[in-house]
Amino acid sequence: MLDHPDRLLPADPNVRAVARRLLAEVEQLPIVSPHGHTDPRWYAENAPFPDPARLFVVPDHYVFRMLYSQGVPLEALGVPRRDGGATEQDGRAIWRLFAAHYHLFRGTPTRLWLDHAFATLFGLEERLGPDNADRHYDTIAEHLARDAFRPRALFERFNIEVIATTESPLDDLKWHAMIRDSGWSGRVITAYRPDPVVDPEFEGFRDNLAKLGEITGEDTLTYQGYLAAHRRRRAFFKSFGATSSDHGHPTAATFDLDPVEAEALFRRVTGNASVSAADAELFRGQMLTEMAAMSLDDGLVLQIHPGALRNHNGAVFARHGRDMGADVPTATEYVRALAPLLERFGNEKDLTVILFTLDETAYARELAPLAGHYPALRLGPAWWFHDSPEGMRRFREMTTETAGFYNTVGFNDDTRAFPSIPARHDVARRIDCGFLASLVCEHRLDEDEAVEVARALAYGLAKKAYRL
Amino acid sequence: MLDHPDRLLPADPNVRAVARRLLAEVEQLPIVSPHGHTDPRWYAENAPFPDPARLFVVPDHYVFRMLYSQGVPLEALGVPRRDGGATEQDGRAIWRLFAAHYHLFRGTPTRLWLDHAFATLFGLEERLGPDNADRHYDTIAEHLARDAFRPRALFERFNIEVIATTESPLDDLKWHAMIRDSGWSGRVITAYRPDPVVDPEFEGFRDNLAKLGEITGEDTLTYQGYLAAHRRRRAFFKSFGATSSDHGHPTAATFDLDPVEAEALFRRVTGNASVSAADAELFRGQMLTEMAAMSLDDGLVLQIHPGALRNHNGAVFARHGRDMGADVPTATEYVRALAPLLERFGNEKDLTVILFTLDETAYARELAPLAGHYPALRLGPAWWFHDSPEGMRRFREMTTETAGFYNTVGFNDDTRAFPSIPARHDVARRIDCGFLASLVCEHRLDEDEAVEVARALAYGLAKKAYRL
Amino acid sequence: MLDHPDRLLPADPNVRAVARRLLAEVEQLPIVSPHGHTDPRWYAENAPFPDPARLFVVPDHYVFRMLYSQGVPLEALGVPRRDGGATEQDGRAIWRLFAAHYHLFRGTPTRLWLDHAFATLFGLEERLGPDNADRHYDTIAEHLARDAFRPRALFERFNIEVIATTESPLDDLKWHAMIRDSGWSGRVITAYRPDPVVDPEFEGFRDNLAKLGEITGEDTLTYQGYLAAHRRRRAFFKSFGATSSDHGHPTAATFDLDPVEAEALFRRVTGNASVSAADAELFRGQMLTEMAAMSLDDGLVLQIHPGALRNHNGAVFARHGRDMGADVPTATEYVRALAPLLERFGNEKDLTVILFTLDETAYARELAPLAGHYPALRLGPAWWFHDSPEGMRRFREMTTETAGFYNTVGFNDDTRAFPSIPARHDVARRIDCGFLASLVCEHRLDEDEAVEVARALAYGLAKKAYRL
Repeated sequence: MLDHPDRLLPADPNVRAVARRLLAEVEQLPIVSPHGHTDPRWYAENAPFPDPARLFVVPDHYVFRMLYSQGVPLEALGVPRRDGGATEQDGRAIWRLFAAHYHLFRGTPTRLWLDHAFATLFGLEERLGPDNADRHYDTIAEHLARDAFRPRALFERFNIEVIATTESPLDDLKWHAMIRDSGWSGRVITAYRPDPVVDPEFEGFRDNLAKLGEITGEDTLTYQGYLAAHRRRRAFFKSFGATSSDHGHPTAATFDLDPVEAEALFRRVTGNASVSAADAELFRGQMLTEMAAMSLDDGLVLQIHPGALRNHNGAVFARHGRDMGADVPTATEYVRALAPLLERFGNEKDLTVILFTLDETAYARELAPLAGHYPALRLGPAWWFHDSPEGMRRFREMTTETAGFYNTVGFNDDTRAFPSIPARHDVARRIDCGFLASLVCEHRLDEDEAVEVARALAYGLAKKAYRL
Repeated sequence: MLDHPDRLLPADPNVRAVARRLLAEVEQLPIVSPHGHTDPRWYAENAPFPDPARLFVVPDHYVFRMLYSQGVPLEALGVPRRDGGATEQDGRAIWRLFAAHYHLFRGTPTRLWLDHAFATLFGLEERLGPDNADRHYDTIAEHLARDAFRPRALFERFNIEVIATTESPLDDLKWHAMIRDSGWSGRVITAYRPDPVVDPEFEGFRDNLAKLGEITGEDTLTYQGYLAAHRRRRAFFKSFGATSSDHGHPTAATFDLDPVEAEALFRRVTGNASVSAADAELFRGQMLTEMAAMSLDDGLVLQIHPGALRNHNGAVFARHGRDMGADVPTATEYVRALAPLLERFGNEKDLTVILFTLDETAYARELAPLAGHYPALRLGPAWWFHDSPEGMRRFREMTTETAGFYNTVGFNDDTRAFPSIPARHDVARRIDCGFLASLVCEHRLDEDEAVEVARALAYGLAKKAYRL
Repeated sequence: MLDHPDRLLPADPNVRAVARRLLAEVEQLPIVSPHGHTDPRWYAENAPFPDPARLFVVPDHYVFRMLYSQGVPLEALGVPRRDGGATEQDGRAIWRLFAAHYHLFRGTPTRLWLDHAFATLFGLEERLGPDNADRHYDTIAEHLARDAFRPRALFERFNIEVIATTESPLDDLKWHAMIRDSGWSGRVITAYRPDPVVDPEFEGFRDNLAKLGEITGEDTLTYQGYLAAHRRRRAFFKSFGATSSDHGHPTAATFDLDPVEAEALFRRVTGNASVSAADAELFRGQMLTEMAAMSLDDGLVLQIHPGALRNHNGAVFARHGRDMGADVPTATEYVRALAPLLERFGNEKDLTVILFTLDETAYARELAPLAGHYPALRLGPAWWFHDSPEGMRRFREMTTETAGFYNTVGFNDDTRAFPSIPARHDVARRIDCGFLASLVCEHRLDEDEAVEVARALAYGLAKKAYRL
């Protein structure tokens, strides 16, 4: 049974009984998805999803990185090559290869998400494997052709109250405009992700600045013009529902330079000479503080996602490009890194900065103590590699005692894998209910309180923290 | 029920049954509190505690940091301002604000400690909240006015066999003298905490040295005179029962300079020029080794509490001063840091150095391997942010397999919150009994052994390690 | 009962029932021991083991480090002194001292291993302690005198299918030759551990190079000759069954210098001047990449064991030498450190690099993400201080969700304590079955899959990863 009603609930019968009662209080709540990477074009065009392989395998780096680690070439999985070289085009062939390696996902969250989608969307009851690969493929393909499986229908079936996508300031938000103009009632909002024009080491940074200048009519070769351009684009994004900005930096470094230093830095990173690593780091960190200043004006919530070393595998990057499963976490320091931003804005009650980490050692040591003190700080949920049952348990065990529940912000699915969204929220709800049930059974929390907390974690805190 | 007899015991019925039996063996043992920060004046004057807010809220940074993190101004909680600015003076108003935010403590140890005190001291059965804030306030206030709730009566009710406070070498120990002269039988001892005259970055360091010279009659502007002054004050502290010194440094660094280098360093940190960060670190580290040398002579146990970055929030420090909930842990290295001290004294059986950490990653990686080898080393209990059910479980899970139980030193309550002392020891006993019960149920330990270990962890090891 | 059938299985009755069924599927499987440090002379000469103390206490640093940490001199435990000074020679006296301190091992894996050996090999039913020390000693001594307790008989009784020892390239493998020539059917293979001729900081490095030149007939004072000498010795080791090399470095650093730089570096580390720490690090890291290149040619699996700071206690090193329980783990970075090797060889399907760590923080943050992507990488099991029930649980909890089970390599006993080998494999099998049973009971894995995984973890993965 791919979708057992007790899955992920604690094994102890007494704890499980409490967890079931808590889950019953939250499992029908709408999905609030304040941070993710689904493609707004899906909701705009509402075209059918292509075949099963192109829905579940080809675009999902969680899936293909595992197969690649065991020797399956990315080409055989249909992952496009930058040079246009041949890759497998037959969805069924990709699917068979995937099914033959499905055992690799034992014990992983990917397996949970996939099984949940197979069971709840397509009525599949059998575990995927080489023997039933074709049967599963046909069943899924047949469903995907139906109107009830188009993006908007799924959005409604998933009970999504609001979902945020993520766009660059250079994006024209045309798909968001098309959604708005369509009259469809689904709430799809954007989020402001300015890395391409904030990170001097981003591919095409200077061209991106020029383009930002064209779009905004600001002189983005001066620091004031550059900042003004951000303000304009943030306002534009807000007009498409944005309530947050998001920043994916290699570290959590922030800086708060005086205006003269900041201008000089801006000239260095936008000048003709190559940018030093130190200046790039300084500029990214300075911009986090500038963004916090803008947030105080326009109300956007500031999300910081630090600590991923991108494109670790040069050969894979050369052949296939970014986001190919070769990003790897690194140790991430927060206490000194965030000091400049916090020194300036940490005591602001009207600012919300949401911190994420790929380095779990920071939970109890740095993040919970910071978030349990500064009014401006909140902790984002377990992220990326840690968006998993054990990862979520560790998050609660290591943050709750110092930061409490109310300095956290509920769940982010953070995904481009649309059919996994209900599964991911379901996992989070189950793990949180299990954790709360343990507190109840150890008499650390009363059950009526646990119900309130469970509802907050599943729904209320995300709405509040993200101002939705 | 605020004080359930099974609280914090493992949920599994079989494990819980064993844990209950172990707990029954230790829950009546006297409290040995070898490290803490209660005010000796309380025991000396034996005056009634003021109102409930001034007992439970105003002085407890665990409490007010959480409220502050959610936007409650410290002034509204009665926390004094350095500039004498207005703060809330009405205890009942503070209490109501506290009660209105009591849900923030769900899942935190503060909640456990408070509920335990409310139930066991004041007979309160209902969870605190906005609706019953006044009723709780009145009940507590009414009790605090009784003789049975004065400090000495509570000390006896708490079954405290011995408690250590912490004083600076510049303290005249007058409250300790008053306690001694009073003829009261309660055993309140001091501990030697020389940070103000050891840390060149401490506020007023050079004035402090001058004052130390006056007190001791030693020439504290020479290194030999300075060391002699320490020896004198340690002897004085011993005459008030001290069995330990305590050192709160930003890192665990130790050094063992040759005498010429050490003298030159002393001249630099006490001279007129400003002290470099490197020299400050060097001097603190050198002094740990000097203190270890003195410990071999006078028998004081050496406690090292490293890794807190103090006063992270400049605005809060400017407005309210030290210890306002804005200290934050940092990553802390021990293996190389302690090498100089250990190279000189690590093999001494007559020396006891007790190590603490705010960085749990050091437990299994560094601290347990060091303490499982060096005769001079012992591990202090889970500390500060980790003085919590999950923190204590992680401590046992990550240290026991390499260091065993007998290289640890039992529990420290480390608190200035007097009414929380029984609750804190109760939490430690329950978590340790639960951990031991798990070992019994997994057939890793026999139950008769678990009883012995439980008694050692609750009582015997603290007496032995701290030479009490 | 020293050897309870349910030991280490989860306490919850439902989970335990599943764990028992899984364990029944694997507990009779042969032992594959692909990485360890038993003495090949034992199997070659097949002489009786000496007395109980010399089997269980004197050579086992896990045992004597714990006693030493509590003040027992190593001399009193019979640990030889480098200066030939007096040490206890009476096995019975050593044994009594050991028995008097047996309580120190409560909660440690050493206790589990010893109890298991006492029970299964010698039929001892009572816990060791001061009162029965002599009885245990006599019983064990009496057994050791029997033919059935000689090394080869124990090897067979332990159901060891294959065991690897570890030798230096300077070793003549004469004991391996003697085993081979004896006609005995036991499969004892060697492994190539070239630290003495790879690490410029190893005692006698330059003499070792000269000796390597003599043995191989290559000019080991040129880089090409030096590399050729490695190739020859690797081939020689392969002729004695070696399927792996093993590298114990202070860090995980790898480098991939161009040939001119590499030659210049080789001249520096082999020249007359003293070698800088930076050059030593560079050379060790360069050699890992060179070894990977050789592995692609000869098929040896490359094991990297980084992160131990050796000989932390100078006095113990001076008196007793290496491997005296004074090696301590340090924080270990992998992502940047391994990049040069991975950039060159990480995508090679025919290469297997097995990574170990003493720094558990790397499991979820660095090692699982790397191993879940690179085809050449696999994760070795929980190592050394973490070769323990809690250590193994953390390993599974922190690696499985990102790397899965199939990027791990089963269990290594890594021991020179021969009688502990079955106990160590037994612990691993029980912990893994317990972990799998939890997944089954939380409906994250079907039981038939758990059986397959349990068999892979206990047997199949080690054979496959180590090419045995």
